[in-house]
Amino acid sequence: MNGRRIVFVGAGGAGLTAAFTLARRAPDAQITVFSKDPVVAYSQCGMPFVLDRKILDFNKLVIYQPPVFKDLGLDVRTSTAIEEIDLDGRAVTTEKGERVEYDRLVIATGSRPFVPPVPGVHLPGVHTLLTLEDGKALYERLKDALNVVIIGGGPIGLETAPAFLDAGAKLTIIERVPQLMPSALDPEMAAIVQAHLEQKGARVITGRGVDSINGTARVESVTCAGEVIPADLVLLSAGIRPNTDLAKQASIDLGVTGGIVVDEYFRVRRNGKVLDDVLAAGDCAEVTGLITGKPVIYAVGSVANRQAKYVADNLLGKKTPYPPVLCPAVCVIGDLHVGNVGLTTHACEQAGITPLTFSARGATRARYYPGGKTVDIKLLSDGDRLVGGQIIGEEGVGGRINVLSLAIGKGMSPADLAGAETCYAPPVSPLIDPLTYAAEMLALKVARAKKSQ
Amino acid sequence: MNGRRIVFVGAGGAGLTAAFTLARRAPDAQITVFSKDPVVAYSQCGMPFVLDRKILDFNKLVIYQPPVFKDLGLDVRTSTAIEEIDLDGRAVTTEKGERVEYDRLVIATGSRPFVPPVPGVHLPGVHTLLTLEDGKALYERLKDALNVVIIGGGPIGLETAPAFLDAGAKLTIIERVPQLMPSALDPEMAAIVQAHLEQKGARVITGRGVDSINGTARVESVTCAGEVIPADLVLLSAGIRPNTDLAKQASIDLGVTGGIVVDEYFRVRRNGKVLDDVLAAGDCAEVTGLITGKPVIYAVGSVANRQAKYVADNLLGKKTPYPPVLCPAVCVIGDLHVGNVGLTTHACEQAGITPLTFSARGATRARYYPGGKTVDIKLLSDGDRLVGGQIIGEEGVGGRINVLSLAIGKGMSPADLAGAETCYAPPVSPLIDPLTYAAEMLALKVARAKKSQ
Ligand SMILES: Cc1cc2nc3c(=O)[nH]c(=O)nc-3n(C[C@H](O)[C@H](O)[C@H](O)COP(=O)(O)OP(=O)(O)OC[C@H]3O[C@@H](n4cnc5c(N)ncnc54)[C@H](O)[C@@H]3O)c2cc1C
Ligand SMILES: Cc1cc2nc3c(=O)[nH]c(=O)nc-3n(C[C@H](O)[C@H](O)[C@H](O)COP(=O)(O)OP(=O)(O)OC[C@H]3O[C@@H](n4cnc5c(N)ncnc54)[C@H](O)[C@@H]3O)c2cc1C
Repeated sequence: MNGRRIVFVGAGGAGLTAAFTLARRAPDAQITVFSKDPVVAYSQCGMPFVLDRKILDFNKLVIYQPPVFKDLGLDVRTSTAIEEIDLDGRAVTTEKGERVEYDRLVIATGSRPFVPPVPGVHLPGVHTLLTLEDGKALYERLKDALNVVIIGGGPIGLETAPAFLDAGAKLTIIERVPQLMPSALDPEMAAIVQAHLEQKGARVITGRGVDSINGTARVESVTCAGEVIPADLVLLSAGIRPNTDLAKQASIDLGVTGGIVVDEYFRVRRNGKVLDDVLAAGDCAEVTGLITGKPVIYAVGSVANRQAKYVADNLLGKKTPYPPVLCPAVCVIGDLHVGNVGLTTHACEQAGITPLTFSARGATRARYYPGGKTVDIKLLSDGDRLVGGQIIGEEGVGGRINVLSLAIGKGMSPADLAGAETCYAPPVSPLIDPLTYAAEMLALKVARAKKSQ
Repeated sequence: MNGRRIVFVGAGGAGLTAAFTLARRAPDAQITVFSKDPVVAYSQCGMPFVLDRKILDFNKLVIYQPPVFKDLGLDVRTSTAIEEIDLDGRAVTTEKGERVEYDRLVIATGSRPFVPPVPGVHLPGVHTLLTLEDGKALYERLKDALNVVIIGGGPIGLETAPAFLDAGAKLTIIERVPQLMPSALDPEMAAIVQAHLEQKGARVITGRGVDSINGTARVESVTCAGEVIPADLVLLSAGIRPNTDLAKQASIDLGVTGGIVVDEYFRVRRNGKVLDDVLAAGDCAEVTGLITGKPVIYAVGSVANRQAKYVADNLLGKKTPYPPVLCPAVCVIGDLHVGNVGLTTHACEQAGITPLTFSARGATRARYYPGGKTVDIKLLSDGDRLVGGQIIGEEGVGGRINVLSLAIGKGMSPADLAGAETCYAPPVSPLIDPLTYAAEMLALKVARAKKSQ
């Protein structure tokens, strides 16, 4: 290894995973991992389900206990924020003033919830959900909450919505743009999510922003388009921003997305010059979108985890270029699984693509087999390849998203996907998989469009 | 269309589906469909689940009622066996002596259960499960059965096994070769299926054949390797044979598999000469295996259904060549989903391939999320591409088999599959999908094998 002292700032999905991999493969490395949080190695992604009492205890989310770090020879410093990076001196300084030198530095500071610039947003009772402490705080308040407002129609708030409803609170969700989950779904697919939430008892307001959050000692209401909505608890879920304070302070280059610019080996830049000894990965760093070739922030754990392996490889001197990212994702809202991969129609348009689309509603089992669910599928093509897909249903979503991810990732056309054989048994799928059907119909549309050119 | 009078012999997954498609697309065609069975347009595949009372009535399996045929202008003749095909005279003759002329003929006579040449096999109380009448007869007997023996470890018998167990019968399954499901699974994967059945109360005997089925008026016992096993009901599930009596009688060429030889347009041959006006499809016809390039019989509904579209295309003069077949399949044994695609180790060896394999046991959800199931995965590579896979678990099998089917079908390597991004949410999958993990480990094995060459 090129330099033995490796410092990670951030012990989340990217940082800690990379540190673990490195520790296993390079036992001689001297690895220090800093986290400003008191607990590390827990699953953020599980928190909505603890809040909804599907999982009985936040402690269940803690995947590794500190002795594991010791065994691996990892020095994990919790509750220790890094306040400064000295790139020239190759050292970081903790909030306690301790200076720690490195041969290689990995910045994996994650993201943070976007806090909209709304009056009253810092009132007590206004929550975000990022860390375990956030989760626990929300859990405590949740018990007594009668009126909850979620500001923003992003996935984290929607995954948490059932927790409020199941606790008996009156829930209002306010999203500024005219649909829920705008970065993952097309409007009519988002309407399915909205109908599901409404059917569970939520009120959903879209296309209207929040004017103010009101209260004296704590939050009492939210004003939305002139209407005053009572609220004793507010959850902000209006998207995330890469957490780049530290990078900015060190004059590390940020990109158009606001995230840290990295090359395919996760090396950062200062004034356009690549730094060989400083990497950045996870939610705080930009990646290249597979379809557009453009920089993008994908703040999901699966992407961060995958990046961690490349980071470890690169730290070990095994130069493995990280490929562009497609980012299949699935969000679980009560019983509803909401999956997406690649571009939405809006994202296509932004990228100069006028997509051909096909939407299909199918079933997850043979129609005579009990317990089958409806599955809604929308596929998008640029007139040649598949470029995106959205799938919503109560079962069979994850597997189909992964099929789509493979197809899109390998540059397949709708006809390629339609031509793929699928398995069949009445309890498992209909004879013709709805994804195959959607691909077939989109392939016809593509063929017709090509003919009429 | 080339000739208006189209005759189908067989109204199952291949024949009736092709006839439907044709009727919709060529309303001027004069289509006659013969079936020797009294009821058509039902799902054979659903029968094990009616027997197990998951589905409450055999009538639920009937997908289309006769008025639908009328509406489409289809003349469907049930309970009418064809006894002869006159290729030169272009006519078929029914068992009632009626002669019906055709311009184009489609033979879709399906398969039938293999009846092993064992003394006593024709005794009353010895059942097979192919038609709706078979299903109903078995259902009637099932109620009073105390001791059941399933002869053969094929999927149809195993899917039906839970029906016997749930009805309280003592069940013994006897398979001549040393494992269950030998054409779908490797031995250690079959052992998982066996353990599942044993845990549900079945006795499983492998590696031993049946000497005789014994009884006077009806079956009373089965003798297996000298042991007399009481039996008041026997189900034969020792594989299937293509139903080619009619084709044979007409001197249509049969292949090495015993199935009807067809070209990529499903045209049959007589003495090696292609007949332009006679097609065969479904279980009765050979297909070309995708990996081996060799003829094979795949008797599954998904294959028959897919073929039906090509048959309709070809009858309409739209020459669409049918590609080689991979045949992903899934068999549901109580709660257990048993999936496979491509070649087993044994099939590899028969094809001259020494496979590199990797087996992994994973989970279907994040480990802290309740309700997750174990999933067992085995992948096979020829040292370059993926050539087969087997997946067993109580959920998440079908979707992963379809991912594998796409990967194998497009000639991908284990590394290609490992490189595909997958979606993640705790209730839907672990952070790293077990299929991705298995592909990754197999890719390492393949890389090491290449290096050491
Ligand atoms: C409620 C919720 C649900 C989610 N659900 C899913 C899901 O279902 N599927 C999915 O794929 N993704 C999900 N995600 C996203 C996923 O959790 C993140 O993408 C992933 O954790 C990102 O990993 P990371 O290492 O980049 O950042 P994080 O895991 O957030 O880690 C950031 C680390 O940086 C540390 N840090 C930051 N600044 C400093 C500093 N100055 N000094 C010291 N330490 C610092 C933090 O303490 C922390 O240890 C969810 C996220 C949330 C919040
Ligand atoms: C119990 C069971 C469970 C199954 N489960 C699954 C599953 O889960 N998934 C899956 O993919 N596949 C499954 N299969 C297989 C699937 O049902 C068959 O592959 C499919 O039906 C084959 O279609 P086919 O048209 O070739 O034959 P069939 O559907 O069997 O149709 C044959 C037709 O030919 C007719 N016929 C035959 N000879 C004559 C004659 N001389 N004159 C007139 N008519 C004649 C018959 O009456 C019938 O109409 C299962 C099969 C069974 C029996």
